[in-house]
Amino acid sequence: MARLTLTDDDAKVRKWFAEEVQKLGCTLSVDQMGNMFARQSGSRKSSAPMIAMGSHLDTQPRGGRYDGILGVMAALEVLRTMKENNFKTNYDVGIVNWTNEEGARFPKSMCSSGVWAGAIPIQKAWDLRDIHDPTVTLRSELERHGYLGDIACSNDSATGYPLGAHFELHIEQGPILQETGRSIGIVQGAQGYRWLTVNVKGKDAHTGTTPLSARHDAMLAASKMIVASNAIAKRHDALASTGIIRVPSNASTNTLPSDVTFTLDIRHPEDSAVHAVQEECLKAFATISSEDGKGVSFDWTLDTDSPAVKFDQGCVESIKAVADHLVGPEKSMYMTSGAGHDTVYTSQHCPSAMIFVPCRDGVSHHPTEYCTPEDCALGTQALLEAVVHYDQT
Amino acid sequence: MARLTLTDDDAKVRKWFAEEVQKLGCTLSVDQMGNMFARQSGSRKSSAPMIAMGSHLDTQPRGGRYDGILGVMAALEVLRTMKENNFKTNYDVGIVNWTNEEGARFPKSMCSSGVWAGAIPIQKAWDLRDIHDPTVTLRSELERHGYLGDIACSNDSATGYPLGAHFELHIEQGPILQETGRSIGIVQGAQGYRWLTVNVKGKDAHTGTTPLSARHDAMLAASKMIVASNAIAKRHDALASTGIIRVPSNASTNTLPSDVTFTLDIRHPEDSAVHAVQEECLKAFATISSEDGKGVSFDWTLDTDSPAVKFDQGCVESIKAVADHLVGPEKSMYMTSGAGHDTVYTSQHCPSAMIFVPCRDGVSHHPTEYCTPEDCALGTQALLEAVVHYDQT
Ligand SMILES: NC(=O)NCCC(=O)O
Ligand SMILES: NC(=O)NCCC(=O)O
Repeated sequence: MARLTLTDDDAKVRKWFAEEVQKLGCTLSVDQMGNMFARQSGSRKSSAPMIAMGSHLDTQPRGGRYDGILGVMAALEVLRTMKENNFKTNYDVGIVNWTNEEGARFPKSMCSSGVWAGAIPIQKAWDLRDIHDPTVTLRSELERHGYLGDIACSNDSATGYPLGAHFELHIEQGPILQETGRSIGIVQGAQGYRWLTVNVKGKDAHTGTTPLSARHDAMLAASKMIVASNAIAKRHDALASTGIIRVPSNASTNTLPSDVTFTLDIRHPEDSAVHAVQEECLKAFATISSEDGKGVSFDWTLDTDSPAVKFDQGCVESIKAVADHLVGPEKSMYMTSGAGHDTVYTSQHCPSAMIFVPCRDGVSHHPTEYCTPEDCALGTQALLEAVVHYDQT
Repeated sequence: MARLTLTDDDAKVRKWFAEEVQKLGCTLSVDQMGNMFARQSGSRKSSAPMIAMGSHLDTQPRGGRYDGILGVMAALEVLRTMKENNFKTNYDVGIVNWTNEEGARFPKSMCSSGVWAGAIPIQKAWDLRDIHDPTVTLRSELERHGYLGDIACSNDSATGYPLGAHFELHIEQGPILQETGRSIGIVQGAQGYRWLTVNVKGKDAHTGTTPLSARHDAMLAASKMIVASNAIAKRHDALASTGIIRVPSNASTNTLPSDVTFTLDIRHPEDSAVHAVQEECLKAFATISSEDGKGVSFDWTLDTDSPAVKFDQGCVESIKAVADHLVGPEKSMYMTSGAGHDTVYTSQHCPSAMIFVPCRDGVSHHPTEYCTPEDCALGTQALLEAVVHYDQT
């Protein structure tokens, strides 16, 4: 699946989504970030904010058919099932399709739930440029497709679209459920993460004529840093990962590169551990810089700082109750989300939690991403029951 | 200096070189690779092949003003000095300007001395394409500038241009002379080297949701391999260097890259040590591949195999005698060239050796490359005396 946010394909699925929810009798509202809110009235005709089931319909450029999409499709199925069974919740319930969760086209992930939560200024989000065509902005694409809505993108009850609660069904995107033979993850929160870019400066030198002792070998130092960060993370039961490494474009086999840049992604459910890993890494990097030859220098920037989040105890317990009933305590488990999700932002302003279902071999952001029909159905049933449970308690 | 081989700038310096040697009374011959041979008759009017002083006038795209150029300029100065002093050698002496030593524009280094030595087929050399404009070949540029000569590019005495000996003055391109306070390096040979490209295959996975134990982390494994190769080389008093590392172009901070490719340049004066380092590296790489998480796989190709070369004992001793006389044994030293040079190829077919002079901080292939006027003069004097010494013994 390649449905980048606010492309013609995304506009097509939005149109389809709008028709589906209208067929179900929902009212549809669109805010100034193109977030789509579909609302089904409850029997109490209360003016309280709706209980939302939310996720996203955009994907990565080489994405799968489940990440985000499952959460919205399941929410539709929940409303359909309620309607077919003439079931009415007490309070209003509904669906949110959040714009640009992936951040793949306009590079900021969980972008529009971030604006809704007040964590990202709307002007900054509007100004995001298409990574391949800088003449196109997120706002110009909202306008082109008619998705620059008239409601403020905010949780403010006077001007925006506040939510009573937010439940999100999502594939795990990791291997834990499959490996432990479980069907439902009761997600209690999301781990904290920090993204660093580290630049190691050495000196270009001839590989054949420069003794090891005379080198400022940025490549060797960067490699040692990557190895060290992994070992440090392991000691803390944390994660450290390098996704990108770059040498200058005029690099050649027989020249030591003048500098090497790499990314470092550090994660742990406790912010204190994330900080400890970062500090130990930077200390190790300083040692490594002077270990070989004539040494190197390095500097670093903090690109993303996403503190750990704990979801609402009430929402989590709704999901726990449902999971116990559906599959029993043996087949479900409490989990912490490894990745960021829109629910991380909604949880700052309304009771929120997530349900995870297994995905094959933990593969996500990849065309082979897969969740069995049985697990999709089970997750959808859990979402329905969690919403009903929350509505009734 | 940016004088890529067979560009208009190179044609300009070739024209200047031709005029200079003709002013000195030399005869000039050009072979089918554009190698330029300037010849001064000796007093014996012998038909023996000339004693050559050779190097190259082409440079790297961001090169210096000494690498190659010094050897040709010094040779001109030697002939000028002989003429001004009415000095005649016994045998013919002369200069060679070798085409495309750098291999920076047409990617094969020491290209035309390689053809002359019979190590590179001429058709292969002619067919080399400009790395930025594949419609241009080395042969088409030879033709455009009128440098596709009529002599075979060969050391064969019937069809080509055999040489009686080959002396090359060159900057060291490394820091050893400067660091040990010496002015002249008596180069006894060139070390062997092998260039490998290693490709490590892992699996792309989300950095936040994939436990360390579930990873096929190609980035971590490649980093460990680079660190290991350096340690192995150190134990063998050899060199191991990585100049290039590459991840797929769709790499991102929160995805483990599916594969990582890096180059490995292994060098040592003894071929057996080069082979031993390579073998130990490949063994270590195999261990590393299964060390972390779910492991990775790797394969490798051998891109260049340049065995070690020992220069002619007689030529080396000529240089030793001259160095002792000029600066004394304290200020000169025997050395092995870390890099490849045209003399590596000529040494396969005629007595050959090289003289090194210091370059500041060992920097070469860089605009800041520098050799003091005093060291240039000393190297030139050594070249003159070595040729005279060789001519008389
Ligand atoms: N779900 C997801 O991939 N979010 C992107 C941010 C992250 O790397 O956690
Ligand atoms: N002199 C020089 O840089 N030669 C290129 C081949 C090598 O890397 O040794």
